[in-house]
Amino acid sequence: MSIASLHRITIADPGDTSGLLGAVKAGLNPARAVAVIGKTEGNGCVNDFTRGIAAAVWQAALAAPVVAVMSGGTEGVICPHVVVLADDDENPHSQGGALVVGAGRTIAISPDMLGRRAQADAVAIAVRRICRENAVATADVQFALVKCPLLTGAAIAASPAGALVVQDTYESMAQSRAASALGVAHALGEITDAHLEAGLGGDRNVYSSVASTSAGVEVDHCEIVILGHNPRAHGRLRASHTMMDDALDAAAVQQLLERIKMEGGRIVQVFAKAEADPSGSVRGRRHTMLTDSDIHATRHARAALGGLLAGLTGEAAIYVSGGAENQGPPGGGPVTIVWEMPSPTANCGG
Amino acid sequence: MSIASLHRITIADPGDTSGLLGAVKAGLNPARAVAVIGKTEGNGCVNDFTRGIAAAVWQAALAAPVVAVMSGGTEGVICPHVVVLADDDENPHSQGGALVVGAGRTIAISPDMLGRRAQADAVAIAVRRICRENAVATADVQFALVKCPLLTGAAIAASPAGALVVQDTYESMAQSRAASALGVAHALGEITDAHLEAGLGGDRNVYSSVASTSAGVEVDHCEIVILGHNPRAHGRLRASHTMMDDALDAAAVQQLLERIKMEGGRIVQVFAKAEADPSGSVRGRRHTMLTDSDIHATRHARAALGGLLAGLTGEAAIYVSGGAENQGPPGGGPVTIVWEMPSPTANCGG
Amino acid sequence: MSIASLHRITIADPGDTSGLLGAVKAGLNPARAVAVIGKTEGNGCVNDFTRGIAAAVWQAALAAPVVAVMSGGTEGVICPHVVVLADDDENPHSQGGALVVGAGRTIAISPDMLGRRAQADAVAIAVRRICRENAVATADVQFALVKCPLLTGAAIAASPAGALVVQDTYESMAQSRAASALGVAHALGEITDAHLEAGLGGDRNVYSSVASTSAGVEVDHCEIVILGHNPRAHGRLRASHTMMDDALDAAAVQQLLERIKMEGGRIVQVFAKAEADPSGSVRGRRHTMLTDSDIHATRHARAALGGLLAGLTGEAAIYVSGGAENQGPPGGGPVTIVWEMPSPTANCGG
Amino acid sequence: MSIASLHRITIADPGDTSGLLGAVKAGLNPARAVAVIGKTEGNGCVNDFTRGIAAAVWQAALAAPVVAVMSGGTEGVICPHVVVLADDDENPHSQGGALVVGAGRTIAISPDMLGRRAQADAVAIAVRRICRENAVATADVQFALVKCPLLTGAAIAASPAGALVVQDTYESMAQSRAASALGVAHALGEITDAHLEAGLGGDRNVYSSVASTSAGVEVDHCEIVILGHNPRAHGRLRASHTMMDDALDAAAVQQLLERIKMEGGRIVQVFAKAEADPSGSVRGRRHTMLTDSDIHATRHARAALGGLLAGLTGEAAIYVSGGAENQGPPGGGPVTIVWEMPSPTANCGG
Repeated sequence: MSIASLHRITIADPGDTSGLLGAVKAGLNPARAVAVIGKTEGNGCVNDFTRGIAAAVWQAALAAPVVAVMSGGTEGVICPHVVVLADDDENPHSQGGALVVGAGRTIAISPDMLGRRAQADAVAIAVRRICRENAVATADVQFALVKCPLLTGAAIAASPAGALVVQDTYESMAQSRAASALGVAHALGEITDAHLEAGLGGDRNVYSSVASTSAGVEVDHCEIVILGHNPRAHGRLRASHTMMDDALDAAAVQQLLERIKMEGGRIVQVFAKAEADPSGSVRGRRHTMLTDSDIHATRHARAALGGLLAGLTGEAAIYVSGGAENQGPPGGGPVTIVWEMPSPTANCGG
Repeated sequence: MSIASLHRITIADPGDTSGLLGAVKAGLNPARAVAVIGKTEGNGCVNDFTRGIAAAVWQAALAAPVVAVMSGGTEGVICPHVVVLADDDENPHSQGGALVVGAGRTIAISPDMLGRRAQADAVAIAVRRICRENAVATADVQFALVKCPLLTGAAIAASPAGALVVQDTYESMAQSRAASALGVAHALGEITDAHLEAGLGGDRNVYSSVASTSAGVEVDHCEIVILGHNPRAHGRLRASHTMMDDALDAAAVQQLLERIKMEGGRIVQVFAKAEADPSGSVRGRRHTMLTDSDIHATRHARAALGGLLAGLTGEAAIYVSGGAENQGPPGGGPVTIVWEMPSPTANCGG
Repeated sequence: MSIASLHRITIADPGDTSGLLGAVKAGLNPARAVAVIGKTEGNGCVNDFTRGIAAAVWQAALAAPVVAVMSGGTEGVICPHVVVLADDDENPHSQGGALVVGAGRTIAISPDMLGRRAQADAVAIAVRRICRENAVATADVQFALVKCPLLTGAAIAASPAGALVVQDTYESMAQSRAASALGVAHALGEITDAHLEAGLGGDRNVYSSVASTSAGVEVDHCEIVILGHNPRAHGRLRASHTMMDDALDAAAVQQLLERIKMEGGRIVQVFAKAEADPSGSVRGRRHTMLTDSDIHATRHARAALGGLLAGLTGEAAIYVSGGAENQGPPGGGPVTIVWEMPSPTANCGG
Repeated sequence: MSIASLHRITIADPGDTSGLLGAVKAGLNPARAVAVIGKTEGNGCVNDFTRGIAAAVWQAALAAPVVAVMSGGTEGVICPHVVVLADDDENPHSQGGALVVGAGRTIAISPDMLGRRAQADAVAIAVRRICRENAVATADVQFALVKCPLLTGAAIAASPAGALVVQDTYESMAQSRAASALGVAHALGEITDAHLEAGLGGDRNVYSSVASTSAGVEVDHCEIVILGHNPRAHGRLRASHTMMDDALDAAAVQQLLERIKMEGGRIVQVFAKAEADPSGSVRGRRHTMLTDSDIHATRHARAALGGLLAGLTGEAAIYVSGGAENQGPPGGGPVTIVWEMPSPTANCGG
């Protein structure tokens, strides 16, 4: 079990790890790093090589076999940054449990597995194992991040007709995100086996409330990071999730922020999923994200949700990932906020 | 003096005027239309022909010589729509004045005038005239919308070296927006003559708090719409403006929304300006809008601010225009909300 | 039967018809116009409204019920232009037949027909009818241009799961182009019924050698223009086609140019189809058109082929349309050149 | 003096060096590598990180302090690839001289030097030194490749008003390319001091006929590679250059190809510069590259010229770089072809 600490480091470019020094001074022990999660400034789509750069330099900089999940696309006000999740000591003064972090990876996802039951099952197996290894009950998972592969042009060209779930590289990202999210939902008991099959068949109303999945050319398996609550551990970090029912659902986020504020909490990091409502409209108003042939819908969606969440929290270094297939209801998506309990001393009026 | 009524009509494509019928049924008299303002789904940059389509079809549909100001770019959740501003009867039951609308245009802005004192002066002259004709004191102007020309490739190629303020079509849009905004600010007494010159010289801290200017290839003069308050008139519409200090300044908008709510007001329309902070960062966090060679900064900025304002108001059919040069402080921008006072009857508990 | 005349008119913007006057002075009788074909400067993809503008203004300007086929995308050096095909008088001095033009349209293609046998059949029926009406033997067709619909976001949202051939607007353009091309091929006897079915099933090696199909949001049926040879008519225009086996097949074009030169011909117009090789490489060299999430493959392909054909012919006002599904072999595409025989007088040493 | 050998290696992604092994088997001695030049699949503009990846991995793979010049943008059919230029043994059987390669770098180009005389002078000094060190007369230089820096958003934000030549990152690339090209031209005696000043002042008719300059965020000095002829050396490689007067000037290239064919030469590599004609038209035909706000002009230009040169040579792995300011006449650009003389034995009929 790893008590989680979280260090956010802004980056000047995809290859920049210079901020690590500051994080170490602030208490990060790189040798205990478990995972690094980041937003990099590529297009977040197929030919985004910034994710791969960042994953490589951070794995090298941390000198530890960490899981690296980089999500491309910092549209609008979103600031490129990484968060390093590390194993921390228990804080005996903290009551009420602690945030725990776990990470791992699946077996390789071959092109013919992608977007299908085999991928979902591989993710589910890994999620259950990570929960077990880190003493997190599946009901206590607040965030399940998955980086999954896509179908490259080479893979598509090399496969016989009908062998793959889809023939387009950009679309394969959606299929891979969906299967990963459904695997998470199944592992956590959010959906039944029948739901899983329906979801793989295209039913977008089957979803996980804590999954956040993104696809990239830089992996051929899935990398997974789990944040959950362990009631018997001692630590000051917490994670809470809410569900935005659509892209305009500021109210859901405001309520969560209010709850954290009531606890005296300090916001440490925001993780959210964005997507263009597949119906083509939001609250009865047509949007143009799905018919814009100049800018992909995922880029539009990240920019819009990033603008909203940055405005609500006053912080632009937030993790907003595009493409929320089976992650929350169609057009909506889960938001997880990591926050810190006030120090016990401070509470005592010291 | 035209007491303002405002009818918002969503559009299915840039040439769609089918919603006019519904507005007429709801009380719009097309023969009394003064101006039509819209958001269309082009890129909002140089080669955006959707603005011209919409301007043409609405001028034809209204069968009146209205001023048409179309702004391209409905990134993220923004819904393509127009608002028709029309002359309305006084409402004798309403107290406290009324919202007045005026419109007009400048002389033609030749390429060598663009972005320079001559353009600012032309705008200032027209703004003062429109205020005078509509009995709006300059101090009571809540919104001054200007559609201004840009430099086309043909104009640049036809001009001798040094004759124009800039040699790039996309950049000429910024120069034109700036000169127009400074002209508004001068006309309304927001800035002195010395400030105007400084602004034309590039000082972004000289600005109007109510101007909203956008450039387009479809005009060679400036089209202007003014919304102001006349304390002696009688009507239920009001307009109030606030200033966002930066792209994350949700607080300024929330306070304005709170004020309107306290009055029992119903929000009718939101007008806002968005821009990528020219410093390259927002509240100390780097953004990537100015270094993204795939998507222009104005598109990013509209998407982000649109996401925030739509979330805060629950409405995606809002007017968010990109490029806020000399419209509010650098990185920020003015927001004007048109709202309706509760009906006197309703107030009396009827 | 309409003996074809062809007038090429460059345009300053999508709504520009000012060049019509010059064409009339050069002999065009607008009342006898049969079809107008053009390249406009939109993105050529889903949200390209320039096609619709041009179609509308030219149909109005010609004041005749012409078929209008506008293709978006003038990437690279391609010059926006239209060609007006009109019915001309026979030229009794010309020997060897004449170029004949015919045009017409299909029944409406409903969303569930799109990309399927029903669309192919509708196109085939119309092509056969146009050939018959214009006394062109199917073997003598040199060019069969089809403008066909696409699936809009609204249509996709309104259809039950599985009802449509594809769920993505951009991809629906490819499906529509393919079905149209297969319909042409079937009508002209280029392929059998079994081939047609195979083509609809995705076999890209089934193709027409003279079809040029493009999709657009501005039509809900197919508009068709046929250019063919009538050996018993008298006229100076000819059309000849060749097949580029891939995007580098300059040799095929050079041979056709050489043949025309040997006849003393003057090139009047070039029509070509471009596509990114679906294998992901050209002559063993990887290309990146299919993995570029910033620019759609059709835009890349038009730019590259436009550069080649403009260089080979010395003329940038050429018709290059993107997406050559079932129009020539995968990665290649048909090229049709309209040219004019030398005047008999000139041949006599005048 | 380094007798040049040239090994072309296609790459599967920006970080791929797996093709090095094949080049070594074919005779490349990495320890004697002088320079590596490549085309990578980024956007070739400001936020293109693929250049930096490729430069880093190839410098590491060659394990030699080579100059690395990576140019982004493989639009259309252009195939991502690198060429390794290495020092080779003299070939005593070859007559008529040999191709010589030299490389080096300038001092750092600070933001206030960029685009100005100071940058041009720094390039000129380095070019003269490289020629001298490699025994190449300036009149015998066939190709002078320069990779130069650009102004980042951070540099612009950190500089006082007026300190920099331009305030826009994308535009700074053009200024940097121009100053570098003018520096080459001055060093090689192509232009006078007065021409140099005129060129820096914006005169595009002052140019080099052998320079090829590209800008990137990955360097803060200029990297330079020179290919020239040494008449007293012995080797089979040659380089010849021609000038395309405009983007349609296939004839110039065809003549050069014909000359090489007459010598029995085998084409080894093509280096070319592309640009959108700044007049807005090519041979009287309007192009839309400069008014397209969705795709930057350099991307359009590379796609078009790449399509033409790949078609003429039958080879898609060619070096086409965008932005030809002061490299050839406006709208045109230099083309250098490296080719191999037939082996003496082969000539003797062996």
